[in-house]
Amino acid sequence: MAALVPFSLLRNYSPFMLARPFIVKGCNLNFSKTVLPLPCRRLPFSARATHDEQAAAKAAAATADSGAPTIFDKIINKEIPSSIVYEDEKVLAFRDINPQAPVHVLVIPKVRDGLTELAKAEARHGEILGQLLYAARIVAEKEGILDGFRVVINSGPSACQSVYHLHLHVLGGRQMNWPPG
Amino acid sequence: MAALVPFSLLRNYSPFMLARPFIVKGCNLNFSKTVLPLPCRRLPFSARATHDEQAAAKAAAATADSGAPTIFDKIINKEIPSSIVYEDEKVLAFRDINPQAPVHVLVIPKVRDGLTELAKAEARHGEILGQLLYAARIVAEKEGILDGFRVVINSGPSACQSVYHLHLHVLGGRQMNWPPG
Repeated sequence: MAALVPFSLLRNYSPFMLARPFIVKGCNLNFSKTVLPLPCRRLPFSARATHDEQAAAKAAAATADSGAPTIFDKIINKEIPSSIVYEDEKVLAFRDINPQAPVHVLVIPKVRDGLTELAKAEARHGEILGQLLYAARIVAEKEGILDGFRVVINSGPSACQSVYHLHLHVLGGRQMNWPPG
Repeated sequence: MAALVPFSLLRNYSPFMLARPFIVKGCNLNFSKTVLPLPCRRLPFSARATHDEQAAAKAAAATADSGAPTIFDKIINKEIPSSIVYEDEKVLAFRDINPQAPVHVLVIPKVRDGLTELAKAEARHGEILGQLLYAARIVAEKEGILDGFRVVINSGPSACQSVYHLHLHVLGGRQMNWPPG
């Protein structure tokens, strides 16, 4: 579902979230193609310097252990809008703002509980990890891609993680390639 | 750990398993580059027809629901060798025979229990799903890539799944790109 979002707020967004496309002043714009940084694919020449998600991921990692809230907290608290696909007591799933496939949904735990990244998982997190993976399956069913979908979890800057709140990417609706990035 | 494997046995292998490289008759050969099919990347021209993991994935899907044992059963039962990275009562992790990164390990449940693919997951599978994801983290630690790794699950032919026994790919040791395939 599209949402009204001021430009000033958009500048604070990570490329990984919210509904697509936005409606701003009555115009239907896809900011993933116009305003937000390009994703982690290798970009040619000078474009790489300014639109490099690898660099963004490294910058994000610098404050990964600060315990500071992330953009996902605002989404969980409904302080900023998102296109929610699935929600239960423990899990929230919403569309990626910069989709890499016709269906691209993020699945997150509502309470981070130390899970800034998968690398920080402890044995006690087993239950929520299972709930997240099962929620990814629910999302695939709701989105009509149960016959073919990929789940991806990035942990750390070299995997392109850019928000330090564990999240699963659910992608589908097109032929996925190999290797996976 | 390298293993002695006869050529006849190799022909029955999926591209997704076993130790690398093999030692055959005293020679250290990387069969992922010489004998086994190429992975799911887009191949040019005629090469695509014979070395197309997309086609292999579709073929594998045809028998996905047959309940027949897969190559993973033989690995679990130690009937064929693999390079095991981690093992506990419920989970086995071993190196992919056709690695897509310096570290590429597969994590599987020892008992399939209907989990031919993630699409077949039910709420009752929550515990094993959590154990698998936590095992992926253990693998990353054991392999020295805890600072950066990607976990990928392919479900169905359009995601390039080629063995119908749920498995998580753990990749790291290089910069991963975006999109993830």
